[in-house]
Amino acid sequence: MRQRTEAPERRRGDLLDAALAIVLDKGVAGLTVDEVAARADVAKGTFYLYFRSKEQLIGALQDRFVGDLTALQQAELDQLRAGDWMGRLLLWMESSLRGYLAHAQLHDALFHHPRAGRGEDSRHRHEADPTINPHAATLVDILEAGTATGDFALTAPRTAAVLLYSAMHGTAHYLVEHGEAETDLVETVIAESLNMCRRYVGRT
Amino acid sequence: MRQRTEAPERRRGDLLDAALAIVLDKGVAGLTVDEVAARADVAKGTFYLYFRSKEQLIGALQDRFVGDLTALQQAELDQLRAGDWMGRLLLWMESSLRGYLAHAQLHDALFHHPRAGRGEDSRHRHEADPTINPHAATLVDILEAGTATGDFALTAPRTAAVLLYSAMHGTAHYLVEHGEAETDLVETVIAESLNMCRRYVGRT
Repeated sequence: MRQRTEAPERRRGDLLDAALAIVLDKGVAGLTVDEVAARADVAKGTFYLYFRSKEQLIGALQDRFVGDLTALQQAELDQLRAGDWMGRLLLWMESSLRGYLAHAQLHDALFHHPRAGRGEDSRHRHEADPTINPHAATLVDILEAGTATGDFALTAPRTAAVLLYSAMHGTAHYLVEHGEAETDLVETVIAESLNMCRRYVGRT
Repeated sequence: MRQRTEAPERRRGDLLDAALAIVLDKGVAGLTVDEVAARADVAKGTFYLYFRSKEQLIGALQDRFVGDLTALQQAELDQLRAGDWMGRLLLWMESSLRGYLAHAQLHDALFHHPRAGRGEDSRHRHEADPTINPHAATLVDILEAGTATGDFALTAPRTAAVLLYSAMHGTAHYLVEHGEAETDLVETVIAESLNMCRRYVGRT
């Protein structure tokens, strides 16, 4: 067992890292609190200082997954010149599709296991809701800012965000299912998704 | 028990009707072959003349659900004048969103129960795939026809169908979650979905 003096945030991260490894290996259904505690080298009682339940632990893993990817994407967005809202929209769409494909196994293990959306943290049923999903909130921010400056020809940017988020998410699922079989499919679909963004949102 | 002379198609329909009532009452998890047979008033052995397993029965219910709604939608589409492809696209989008909302309970019971997508008929993971989902195939037909006549400004109509189908499906989920709380939301979202179709697909 590790020293009790380890910083709480560090220990919480260790527990999440241990849980992540188990989810990738066995899925959410195969994860037990006992194994998480053993793998993180802490007593089971210590686990419960940080998480009320397995369900809350999975919710925290979901939050960390979305939070990490959203922060990475925000760093990419911050590279673009100020005021380039169409550039930000196109980058959001492309990097979301590519990010989803790159992390599909973990995403599906965390969000599409049988108990997802049924526990206390039913995030995935609300995937396009910016008040719950920071990745959707990024899209709302871009669409609202570009509409305010007049770069975008939208009258209902928050509703447009629901439509575009949904298009991205469902299309990413489709690519996970079909992308390996058809080598050019991923690039074709990404190009068309950008075309959709330009035509729907842009001024003509 | 009913007469053996009942027509096979009729008896298959009786079994599906019985299964549907049980799914609406208890969910897929609560359905047993014994109860389906009892409710349809046939011997359990008779059930297995029509369906190999509970999983195949659920797959058949999914097929009938999608087939019935697609046929209803096609009848609406056939009312439009020949060659009005934009009208058909807008009708497809609006009637799909309204149909989803009207049948959300049964849809979610059939397609979002824990075993959905994991059995032998894993339709829902491929929801935007027109080779599996006739509702998605309707959209492909409209986009390809309107592109061929030059009414639509698309270069990749099959890919556009994946994007628009995904936008419809994810947005319908969002409306099921939020539509009751916000009374104007459904109409606002449907209006914006039609705006998206016109701007993305239409000639400017």
